[in-house]
Amino acid sequence: MKCNRIILASASPRRKELLARLGAEFEVIPSGGEEVITKEIPSEIVMELAAQKAGAVAKEVREEYGRSAKGISEECVLAIGADTIVVNEGKILGKPADEADACRMLRSLSGKTHQVYTGVCLIRLETEKCEEHTFFEETNVTFYPMTEEEIRDYVDTKDPLDKAGAYGIQGICGKYIRGIQGDYNNVVGLPVARLYHEMLEFSRDWNE
Amino acid sequence: MKCNRIILASASPRRKELLARLGAEFEVIPSGGEEVITKEIPSEIVMELAAQKAGAVAKEVREEYGRSAKGISEECVLAIGADTIVVNEGKILGKPADEADACRMLRSLSGKTHQVYTGVCLIRLETEKCEEHTFFEETNVTFYPMTEEEIRDYVDTKDPLDKAGAYGIQGICGKYIRGIQGDYNNVVGLPVARLYHEMLEFSRDWNE
Repeated sequence: MKCNRIILASASPRRKELLARLGAEFEVIPSGGEEVITKEIPSEIVMELAAQKAGAVAKEVREEYGRSAKGISEECVLAIGADTIVVNEGKILGKPADEADACRMLRSLSGKTHQVYTGVCLIRLETEKCEEHTFFEETNVTFYPMTEEEIRDYVDTKDPLDKAGAYGIQGICGKYIRGIQGDYNNVVGLPVARLYHEMLEFSRDWNE
Repeated sequence: MKCNRIILASASPRRKELLARLGAEFEVIPSGGEEVITKEIPSEIVMELAAQKAGAVAKEVREEYGRSAKGISEECVLAIGADTIVVNEGKILGKPADEADACRMLRSLSGKTHQVYTGVCLIRLETEKCEEHTFFEETNVTFYPMTEEEIRDYVDTKDPLDKAGAYGIQGICGKYIRGIQGDYNNVVGLPVARLYHEMLEFSRDWNE
């Protein structure tokens, strides 16, 4: 059964825009659940958090159908959770606490190559079935060396403040990024190409 | 002398949007000149065409100042020309002639890695001086294998028809692109990061 209801379990406008490129209609229900990290390896952390996000929304949807007369029987629901982290020399960089923190992060990325991990979790819900599939994608990002003035100028734009690692590859920060290795959209927040192919595969397994 | 007039010698809205990320104000004057290719190596072809575009606009500007009472003496003009080509297994792919041609190009890119070259030419004009600097940037792009149906669906969107190599990395084609190696913006049409650093260097040489 093809899923007739797709839910993105994320409040990120960037993820919403990227998922829209797949062409399918979907709703956005940000997961309100608490995020708990028990893993230590970056790839496992993003998959764990993605699964928690998709899981929280799948639980909500199950409850919603439980209350309705219709039930879930006529629907197949696909919940998509995703989480992105920036890792520099083994250290995880979250969103900066303030401008000084953003400057520190950018100084640490300057002139070097770091890793961006996005974990994605797909949960399919039907009346009798619930299946979960999780994967991650890694992209290397190389910065040009940045001067103190360039770091200050960029932080002054406020662009870094709501972003993991204190930069957004898709905007004005592009002039400091020498190159990447891997999927660009993975750095923005959702590995669109990998997700598309995993969704195809996931549907195929389900239908067999 | 810092350039107080920057001109982008390109009609491409994608290049305009990318150049705007550098933060400097600029005008757009598409070069009307004829493009002549005498080179055979992709990197040399894009540099040759970029130089012709920047050169044609620099010539126009020189004539414009020649006619005005003010003259060029109070200004420093920087003209920027750029040209992008897609190269697959040594073969240059231009813009597709029609839908069938777009399908053929996408079939040839499917499941493989190809190269995108953008050449950029900077021309600085002052009363007594004219200096030119040209460079190119190369990015590798890897496609997932595409089915005939996927190729047909994508060509039906018309997105490929005005683009070299019959695809636009920045849009709905993203779901077919496994990854890149190099500057993403170079594939869109302007190597923003490299251009920024070359412009800094070019101004420095000039001022010494």
